[in-house]
Amino acid sequence: MNIQQIIAKKRDKESLNKEEIKYFVEEYVKGNITDYQAAALVMAIYLNGMTDEETTELTLQMAHSGEILDLSSIGKTVVDKHSTGGVGDKITIVLMPIIASLGIPVAKMSGRGLGFTGGTADKLESIPGYNTVIEMDKFIQNVKKIGISLITQTANLAPADKKLYALRDSIACVESKPLIASSIMSKKIAAGAEKIVLDVTVGNGAFMKTKEDAMEISEMMKNIGNLANRETICVLTNMDEPVGKAVGNTLEIIETIECLKGNMPQDIKTIVLEIGSYIIKLSGNGENIEENKRKILENIENGKAYEKFIELVGNQNGDIEYIKNPDKFPKAKYILPVISEKAGYVEKLDAEKVGVTSVDLGAGRIKKEDSIDYTVGIWLEKKISDKVEKGEILAYIHANGEEKGKQAVEDIKQAYQITANAIKEPEYILGIV
Amino acid sequence: MNIQQIIAKKRDKESLNKEEIKYFVEEYVKGNITDYQAAALVMAIYLNGMTDEETTELTLQMAHSGEILDLSSIGKTVVDKHSTGGVGDKITIVLMPIIASLGIPVAKMSGRGLGFTGGTADKLESIPGYNTVIEMDKFIQNVKKIGISLITQTANLAPADKKLYALRDSIACVESKPLIASSIMSKKIAAGAEKIVLDVTVGNGAFMKTKEDAMEISEMMKNIGNLANRETICVLTNMDEPVGKAVGNTLEIIETIECLKGNMPQDIKTIVLEIGSYIIKLSGNGENIEENKRKILENIENGKAYEKFIELVGNQNGDIEYIKNPDKFPKAKYILPVISEKAGYVEKLDAEKVGVTSVDLGAGRIKKEDSIDYTVGIWLEKKISDKVEKGEILAYIHANGEEKGKQAVEDIKQAYQITANAIKEPEYILGIV
Repeated sequence: MNIQQIIAKKRDKESLNKEEIKYFVEEYVKGNITDYQAAALVMAIYLNGMTDEETTELTLQMAHSGEILDLSSIGKTVVDKHSTGGVGDKITIVLMPIIASLGIPVAKMSGRGLGFTGGTADKLESIPGYNTVIEMDKFIQNVKKIGISLITQTANLAPADKKLYALRDSIACVESKPLIASSIMSKKIAAGAEKIVLDVTVGNGAFMKTKEDAMEISEMMKNIGNLANRETICVLTNMDEPVGKAVGNTLEIIETIECLKGNMPQDIKTIVLEIGSYIIKLSGNGENIEENKRKILENIENGKAYEKFIELVGNQNGDIEYIKNPDKFPKAKYILPVISEKAGYVEKLDAEKVGVTSVDLGAGRIKKEDSIDYTVGIWLEKKISDKVEKGEILAYIHANGEEKGKQAVEDIKQAYQITANAIKEPEYILGIV
Repeated sequence: MNIQQIIAKKRDKESLNKEEIKYFVEEYVKGNITDYQAAALVMAIYLNGMTDEETTELTLQMAHSGEILDLSSIGKTVVDKHSTGGVGDKITIVLMPIIASLGIPVAKMSGRGLGFTGGTADKLESIPGYNTVIEMDKFIQNVKKIGISLITQTANLAPADKKLYALRDSIACVESKPLIASSIMSKKIAAGAEKIVLDVTVGNGAFMKTKEDAMEISEMMKNIGNLANRETICVLTNMDEPVGKAVGNTLEIIETIECLKGNMPQDIKTIVLEIGSYIIKLSGNGENIEENKRKILENIENGKAYEKFIELVGNQNGDIEYIKNPDKFPKAKYILPVISEKAGYVEKLDAEKVGVTSVDLGAGRIKKEDSIDYTVGIWLEKKISDKVEKGEILAYIHANGEEKGKQAVEDIKQAYQITANAIKEPEYILGIV
């Protein structure tokens, strides 16, 4: 077996067998297969595709290229949750304390933001003192002690995926369905959860632009999960506009606190109830989805979810005074309104444009090494289907530079499309796979 | 402009414009574009193809990545000749002294063998003393002095092609028509000739396995030549069986001497007359192809071609006593006959298998660094359409190891396919483009 033969097979649209995929992953991680050979294979995969069997095998080989976490000492079924990324996506931070407040253990590692999508770890770190960098034994201790820990990835999980993802990024091969599916699932399998609920985002602010693409990749991931003995459910959610009102790290934490106090925008509420209900179901704590939704609402109303969030922040060294009194959070120097120039209804609110604008303001990273300004971002007062008067405020820009702020006002104005006719409220849940 | 965008365009089957191709070639040679980015682009080109305009632009950019030779001081039109490679292909060494004997200047650089195809430079070096490594000014002086010089490439011609070819070889992307066409033509353009005759080999011992493929690549190369102001003619020749009787370096030189004395096997004669006539035509020394063939035959019969070859060898420091008395050439230790096990007619004689066997005997290289044994090879007594008796000799193996020799006897026996029915003499010329 040699890598040229493997490349030639995929080049000629043949399927690779288990031994060939194992050989590729192992020898690539060891450095015996070069980046240029891997690049040629990746482009051939991008253009000629992979079968479900090939995708599953690639996933398992990448998962086993590093540590596989063992969460069995927690003593209960752990359900992992993952989003394929979006703008204003704070669902994990809102939902996971609710799940923990129901007595279901939450042991979750989240990524950092790159490009126009934000990262949960960055948002959590905007809470002064909050520590996301926690070693594995302490992480598991946290879950045993208070039922929840939200950290960033500290273990050496799926290094083959890490190496391959960086390569794909530099050769315009990120958007390949089998490669996206195997990348996500390899990390989830290595992260040790027995069951997985995936929030597959769809729309202009997501990797998957159409429902068809999202369905296809969801089927792939569910299939991989089943073959790997990790029951997986995908919830397709709308990412044509940002999730909720806040985009930017501190702003999203402030919105999260509001949500946990029961003041949820309709989109966040719908998504939290849907994904949360499936997590409860997979954890073995309730077969009935509608009943599960009721339990979630109950623990928001009785304050238990909010209390769990305070407990989480405190346990990870965060200053809970900021949670109790969000006015304490440092604010951006300029808060500039975006004024509507006409009356009507919001027809579109371009999620990608909002995401790019927030990065331009300093809320995200273009390169991995970039630092983040937690205070900046965008607060969206109007969302799709909302009625708007001429001169009314569409959004607020939070900026630390006057020029950047003014530019952002213009950019966000462009992100809105206002029409004379009434618009229906969007569907927030597009499907379950 | 950046390389990711260029890769993405070709990935999505779009055409690259001149600026993008220029950027790729220049920055790749400088090292600002990495091998893995080039590999992804090459695989995308392999799978999605290139237009004639893209192929021409790539050719010109690669040609201009290094020196462009100026042969104008020779004072006459120089016609270059190039073969796309094959087994037993000694046409250049037979033909070019004939052309020079007609007063048409010959300034030709040839490559070395790699894989199952031999190289003209290696064959010439099997003549004791013959020097192929000659600097450009001396090369041109040689042509001015005696009308001919055959050397190996010493100038820094088309370094981009060299770098890209090595990459293609390691990522299973050699057999891409636009990349083969641009590789050949970039070197020919850099080598300075005004007109080009290409021997495009077709069959199992060639890159192009079918006439359709060869026609397609010939059209590409002719088109590039025209756009680059280098008139180009392609002669498609049969490479289902080896050319002539000898395969191996010294053996091919011995056959060349015989040919120049007028004893040409039918295939060599047909190919030499056809390609030679087009070289004469392009050089401006005769429009009529049949008349040109007559001139070639005349200079073989009157000994002028043979005399020119002696002059060439002597002028490049080769020992002409070997040419005058070929029995002087060192011989392999074992000369083993391959005996036919049945009577009939030769239906097939697998050129690739013969080529691989000659490499196994030591006549060629698998890796660039391998050294060559000039004495070994195969002498084919029977060729396609020849009548064979049971027990008659099909070929002789020239080997320097007994085991290797015995293995080669078996391998060559397998290369022959003998049938009861009479077989027509093959067509040696398959088309002119």
